[in-house]
Amino acid sequence: MDELKRRVLAEGKNLGDGILKVDSILNHQMDPQLMYEIGQEIARRFEAQQATRILTAEVSGIGPALMTGLALGIPIVYARKRKPITMMEPVHVESAPSHTKGHETLLMVSPEFLMPQDRVLIVDDFLATGKTIAALGRLVKRAGAQLVGVGAVIEKTFEGGRDYLSDFDGLPIESLVVITDMPDHRIILAD
Amino acid sequence: MDELKRRVLAEGKNLGDGILKVDSILNHQMDPQLMYEIGQEIARRFEAQQATRILTAEVSGIGPALMTGLALGIPIVYARKRKPITMMEPVHVESAPSHTKGHETLLMVSPEFLMPQDRVLIVDDFLATGKTIAALGRLVKRAGAQLVGVGAVIEKTFEGGRDYLSDFDGLPIESLVVITDMPDHRIILAD
Repeated sequence: MDELKRRVLAEGKNLGDGILKVDSILNHQMDPQLMYEIGQEIARRFEAQQATRILTAEVSGIGPALMTGLALGIPIVYARKRKPITMMEPVHVESAPSHTKGHETLLMVSPEFLMPQDRVLIVDDFLATGKTIAALGRLVKRAGAQLVGVGAVIEKTFEGGRDYLSDFDGLPIESLVVITDMPDHRIILAD
Repeated sequence: MDELKRRVLAEGKNLGDGILKVDSILNHQMDPQLMYEIGQEIARRFEAQQATRILTAEVSGIGPALMTGLALGIPIVYARKRKPITMMEPVHVESAPSHTKGHETLLMVSPEFLMPQDRVLIVDDFLATGKTIAALGRLVKRAGAQLVGVGAVIEKTFEGGRDYLSDFDGLPIESLVVITDMPDHRIILAD
């Protein structure tokens, strides 16, 4: 994942308050080949978990989740933030505060796509405060399924996500790029 | 694309008013291998157009666009419907009426990801009234780039999208599954 690290450093912009602009890589533009390799690497790290389904949240989790699902040969489901007219009741619903939008975001999944027998790997673009991922984890519990891991493309360790997720005992968490600090306008990666 | 047709017929639900529920395939759950094959097929149909970039709209266009981009080896950009805090002004903006949501939807693209030298292939999950795709086409024009084709996973011909898109003279349009009618609770595919 050296190429991913190189691109985060070259193209990422520290907008202050821990907000990282990486829309050339993750949230607006995507390089499909790089996303393919991201999926391969997340899949490699969780191969032993024998996941049967990947869960992510719309919008920017879809790319990495889809490519991880391709590598593992399992379906993905993305939690919806707004209920489309094709989504039927009842749905599983959880909410999470949005770090970058300043309000609560709903996360909804149809029970038909998250089942009690599922072993679920959560994949998302960011692991920051951990609150969105925790909400996805609660959706997994609500469905009666088993959460077997969390894979993130970029982790900002200084926002405490791993501590926040410690309620999920012994949950394997992997991130491909680890940002330990964002002082001034800089981006500091872990070795 | 026989497998895709089979699944649309087996899993698709006609909710009336031309609304097709295919959230087990396209808008909530995705089968990454099927999506990979969708991308390969759209790419094959537009190989001669020498596109340099794929444009789609969040949310459900992202899967097919990403896989088409993987097949063609070019970046994708997805128009945002809500402006994330990391999106800087100025942006290109167009609006389209949302068929399934009953209001105008904004579509925003950062100029840095849609450039005058780009040859742009639009990829989306549905071609229905054509209004979302036309708005994406206007974004391409606004950026001074060249629109070279439109690829959709599912077309509903009875909603007139091709006629609506005839303003874009001689534009190649391809759909993988063509639905000619949705009477009662049925789904009728073209041969």
